[in-house]
Amino acid sequence: MSGPDEFDWIARLLRPLATAPEALGLMDDVAVLSPPPGMDLVITADALVAGVHFLPDDPLDLVARKALRVNLSDLAAKAATPFGYLLSIAWPDAVDWHGRALFAQGLAEDQARYGVSLLGGDTVATPGPLTISITALGWAAKGAARLRSAAAPGDVVLVSGPIGDGWLGLQSAQAGRDDRLARRYRLPEPRLDLREILLAGAGGAADISDGLVADTGHIADASGVRILLDLDRMPLSPEASGWLAKQDDNAAGLAQLATGGDDYQIVCTVDPMRAGRLTGFTAMGSVVDGQGVETRYAGQPVNLTRTGWRHGKDG
Amino acid sequence: MSGPDEFDWIARLLRPLATAPEALGLMDDVAVLSPPPGMDLVITADALVAGVHFLPDDPLDLVARKALRVNLSDLAAKAATPFGYLLSIAWPDAVDWHGRALFAQGLAEDQARYGVSLLGGDTVATPGPLTISITALGWAAKGAARLRSAAAPGDVVLVSGPIGDGWLGLQSAQAGRDDRLARRYRLPEPRLDLREILLAGAGGAADISDGLVADTGHIADASGVRILLDLDRMPLSPEASGWLAKQDDNAAGLAQLATGGDDYQIVCTVDPMRAGRLTGFTAMGSVVDGQGVETRYAGQPVNLTRTGWRHGKDG
Repeated sequence: MSGPDEFDWIARLLRPLATAPEALGLMDDVAVLSPPPGMDLVITADALVAGVHFLPDDPLDLVARKALRVNLSDLAAKAATPFGYLLSIAWPDAVDWHGRALFAQGLAEDQARYGVSLLGGDTVATPGPLTISITALGWAAKGAARLRSAAAPGDVVLVSGPIGDGWLGLQSAQAGRDDRLARRYRLPEPRLDLREILLAGAGGAADISDGLVADTGHIADASGVRILLDLDRMPLSPEASGWLAKQDDNAAGLAQLATGGDDYQIVCTVDPMRAGRLTGFTAMGSVVDGQGVETRYAGQPVNLTRTGWRHGKDG
Repeated sequence: MSGPDEFDWIARLLRPLATAPEALGLMDDVAVLSPPPGMDLVITADALVAGVHFLPDDPLDLVARKALRVNLSDLAAKAATPFGYLLSIAWPDAVDWHGRALFAQGLAEDQARYGVSLLGGDTVATPGPLTISITALGWAAKGAARLRSAAAPGDVVLVSGPIGDGWLGLQSAQAGRDDRLARRYRLPEPRLDLREILLAGAGGAADISDGLVADTGHIADASGVRILLDLDRMPLSPEASGWLAKQDDNAAGLAQLATGGDDYQIVCTVDPMRAGRLTGFTAMGSVVDGQGVETRYAGQPVNLTRTGWRHGKDG
């Protein structure tokens, strides 16, 4: 392999990112952490592949930040406080020193922003596409992590912000535009700001990466409940409202936005008595006995299929 | 992408591997662990790429087991007790259901063997080669992890078993042979059996994945010391002894074995007063002031270069 020297990459670009003493200056094969008493370790891993999860010509600082942020988003949904991450990265030869430096610069920016440290990992060569796997670690008070499995019949369902911007941003990015939504697609914002609010009331919670409907479905599956979502109550950005106004079928447009993914908002369930504590959230559904997710528009079921959406009563 | 369905793969093949309750049945995006009081978390990540770290036609159960074992080997060298792991895997389309089932079967075998559980991770598609990233977690009593940084001048240097079998095994495997060393190359044995022995005496320790000389160099770098290695004291398997007898230059042959990698033995430093506690280890060097590693044969320096080895006094 003829790419940059791996020892240089580690010593000059990664070691400055190992700011926590627990990272042992990347001089060992491991990190060693002393868990704070009374805290649970919350741990998650997400992988990104060039051409699958980001566009091959996306700037590498943004790719690095997105790879970190999608992991932090998983911790945010659990109301955990991020501490650090391990990075396994497979570099194609074609990425030169400048590209790697840009990647490390992106990590440095978001480490400062979110107060996390590189803790370790691995760097290898690949004849394939750039492949990034991050394992992120956070702490939560014992038993306080907000799990998907905690939804209960009678709960209401809330979302933390506009839905559909991720999917619209992907369309923009693919069309070569550099508007707000394209930038948001490339650089999502994990809702770590919601930790105290989630702790104050949320039951089951998930971040919205696969799409509102899919991630709500994960809560339904993990909790053994059925969740009803009213698409006409779904919060939208001004851009998404503008896009929706141009669609022939309002319900189908909303269904598209609700299944698009990459929003990185949080969907959670909450006992109605505590719903008032979740300031900034929007109510758009309820939890009942049963299984699966039912999407509705004007009180009628909207049947989602892989290839499209149709109105009907068999959803 | 037209490979097996990712939800089926997770539900039918991965979920049975999530044996620890902390894995939440893979129904969440995270695992939540309550650290045992008084224990440190020891965490490591290693990635493997088809065609780079294993042969593209290696059986997938062995690939899975090797991916897990190289991570467990890192924990073994720290005298940590493995608990579980997260798996991020990028599948090419070409791997069918049978291949994935074989991969999961390999993980199941080694989970039972080493008492670990799958805790989470991610599964994605890739247009490139099969890429596996594992993050392994273990526990060690607070402050007890054997780090690379603990070597001190005056220590002796010990190795836990034969050196060079990994490199000879790679030659065998590449030549299509299925002898003991080829099988050992495909399926290394992490020295988790040495935990109590390491705790009884070892100072700095590392597993031998890059090669004895390189990994000893990591200890030297992390500890700020110089390490002298006598190649003529290096323990060899019968196969390695047989190979060495056929080489023209004994010192060069030993240097080849000492730089080959994939041995997954443990090299450690120990105060001479405690060396007797490390039963089963072989002494082959010493720690002095300075930096780097000096390899010697018959008391004379052997100069290692990237392209070969020559005798000399400038090593």
